[in-house]
Amino acid sequence: MEWIPNHRILIVGLGLMGGSYARALKRLGFRVSALDRDPEAIEYALREHIIHEGAAGEDDRLVREADAVISALYPAVFPDWVEKHQHLFKPGLMMTDVTGVKSCIVYRIQELLREDVEFISAHPMAGRELSGVQNSDDRIFRDANYIVVPTEKNTPEGIKWCGTLGRLLGCRKIAVLDPREHDEMIAFVSQLTHCIAVSLMTCSDSTHLADYTGDSFRDLTRIARINDKMWSELFMMNREPLLRQMDTFLAELTAFRNMLEAGDTEGMREKMRLSTERRAAF
Amino acid sequence: MEWIPNHRILIVGLGLMGGSYARALKRLGFRVSALDRDPEAIEYALREHIIHEGAAGEDDRLVREADAVISALYPAVFPDWVEKHQHLFKPGLMMTDVTGVKSCIVYRIQELLREDVEFISAHPMAGRELSGVQNSDDRIFRDANYIVVPTEKNTPEGIKWCGTLGRLLGCRKIAVLDPREHDEMIAFVSQLTHCIAVSLMTCSDSTHLADYTGDSFRDLTRIARINDKMWSELFMMNREPLLRQMDTFLAELTAFRNMLEAGDTEGMREKMRLSTERRAAF
Repeated sequence: MEWIPNHRILIVGLGLMGGSYARALKRLGFRVSALDRDPEAIEYALREHIIHEGAAGEDDRLVREADAVISALYPAVFPDWVEKHQHLFKPGLMMTDVTGVKSCIVYRIQELLREDVEFISAHPMAGRELSGVQNSDDRIFRDANYIVVPTEKNTPEGIKWCGTLGRLLGCRKIAVLDPREHDEMIAFVSQLTHCIAVSLMTCSDSTHLADYTGDSFRDLTRIARINDKMWSELFMMNREPLLRQMDTFLAELTAFRNMLEAGDTEGMREKMRLSTERRAAF
Repeated sequence: MEWIPNHRILIVGLGLMGGSYARALKRLGFRVSALDRDPEAIEYALREHIIHEGAAGEDDRLVREADAVISALYPAVFPDWVEKHQHLFKPGLMMTDVTGVKSCIVYRIQELLREDVEFISAHPMAGRELSGVQNSDDRIFRDANYIVVPTEKNTPEGIKWCGTLGRLLGCRKIAVLDPREHDEMIAFVSQLTHCIAVSLMTCSDSTHLADYTGDSFRDLTRIARINDKMWSELFMMNREPLLRQMDTFLAELTAFRNMLEAGDTEGMREKMRLSTERRAAF
C-alpha cells in the first residue's frame, strides 16, 4: 500500500501519541478517524479539528472503511482489540503501532492476525511529559528518531510503508531494528534513565532543596514526572532486558562508590575520562 | 568593607570560574588583578581585557595592593596559598572563594588565617562543562543560586559583603547555609548526579546507541563530560556526605529493581506518583 492522501487512516487510542499522529496526518491530507473509549477525547478532537470522524467505544463502520490502522493503545489491551475487530479489516489493510516495547507484543499480534493484512511495528521516539489528546502536538516528531521493528513475517513493502510514515511525521532518522535489539536498546536509553530519575526523586525528600538545584539535578529529574500507569506497564512488558540494564548500572555505580570509599582517586578519574570521551562522541 | 568600584580585587586561580568573576567585576568598574601559575592563562586574560593586571606564579605587589581576594584555586592548594601569602594581606582584607565543598576547607582556612582579615566562604552554583579562562563567561551567574557559607567566626558585615558579591555577579537567589548543610545538599543535588551520569556512560559501551537516544538519555548524561581532576578532588573532600547519598540512592534504585522483578506494579506506580508530585513542586 502506498501513502495516498484520501486514504482512510484509523487511529485507535486517542491520547497524546494518537492525537499527535492524527494532527500530522490530517495536515498532510489524509482522511483521519479515531476510536477511543473516552467520549471527551473524541469530542475534543472533533471540536479542535484534529480528526475528521470519531467514535467513543465501538464503531464497526470506521474499522471497515480504514485503509490503515495505527494503534496507540496501551500494549496490554492492543492484542484484544485486534482479536475483536480484525474480522472487519479490509483485505490488504496495513497496521502499525507506537508501542515502546516490542518482543512481548509484535509476535503476539502477528500470530493472531489474519494472513491477508500486515502488521509492521514502529516506535517513534517522541513524547512529552504530559498525556491526553489535549496535549497532543505533531511537532514532537520533528527531528525525533523513528524505529521500524520488523520480524520475518514482514514484507519489504511493509517495512518501506512504515518507514515512509516516519518520514511523513517529520522524524529525522528512520532506523530498522529487530524486536530483541530494540528492547535492549530501549531498556538502556529510556527505561533505565526513567528508573534513575524516579529513584532520585524518591530516595530523599528533596522539596526543600528546590532552591539550590542547579541544571544538573534539573536535567536528571526532568523525566521524573511520569505517567505511572503507562510506564509501569512498559517496564513489566520489558522486564528481563530492563532488569539486565539495571543490574549493570547498579554494579557500575556501586563500583564507583567503592572507589570513593577506598580513596581510589585514579580509578574514579579513569571512569570520568571514559565517560567524557564517550559523551563527547554523541 | 563595602563594594566600592576602584577597590582592587585579586583573583587567585584564573580558570573558568576565576575568569568569569574577573569579567563580571571588571565590567562593574572594579580594578581586577589575577594570579595563576599558567602564564598562558594570564596572557590570554590580559590580551582579552578580562583583567587589568596579572602575573604568573608569585607577585607580592598584587597581593599587597588587594582590598579583596577571591580564591578560585583547587581546594587542595588553597590553604597552602593562604599560609604562604597572608603576611602580605592588608589589614581588614576580605577573602572569599568558589569552592564546591565546604566543611573540609572553611574551618581550616579560618583556623590558619590572621585575625585582622576575614574569610567568608561562598559557592556560586554556576559553571560550564568546559574549563579554562578561555571558556570563562560572566553570563553563567545569571539566575544561578549563590550560597554564602558562614561559620561562627564570620561577622554579620562579612556575610552581607559576601551576599552582595553574589548579587553583583547577577545571581538570582542568595542563600545562607552552614558548612555541614551545604555539603549534604551539594552531595545530593550535584555530586550524586554527576556520579550517576558518569556511571551511566561507563556501564555499557553506548556509542553505537547515539542514533537512538532521545532527550531523556541526553539530559541524564549531559554532565558526564567532566573535569576528572577537579571532580575527583571534590568527591574526596566530601567523601562522607557523598557516600551517604550514594548509599541512599543505591538502596532506592535496588528497591525499585526488586519491585520490577517481583512484578509489584502497584509499588512501582506509587514511587512514580511520588516522584511526579515532588518534581512538579520544583
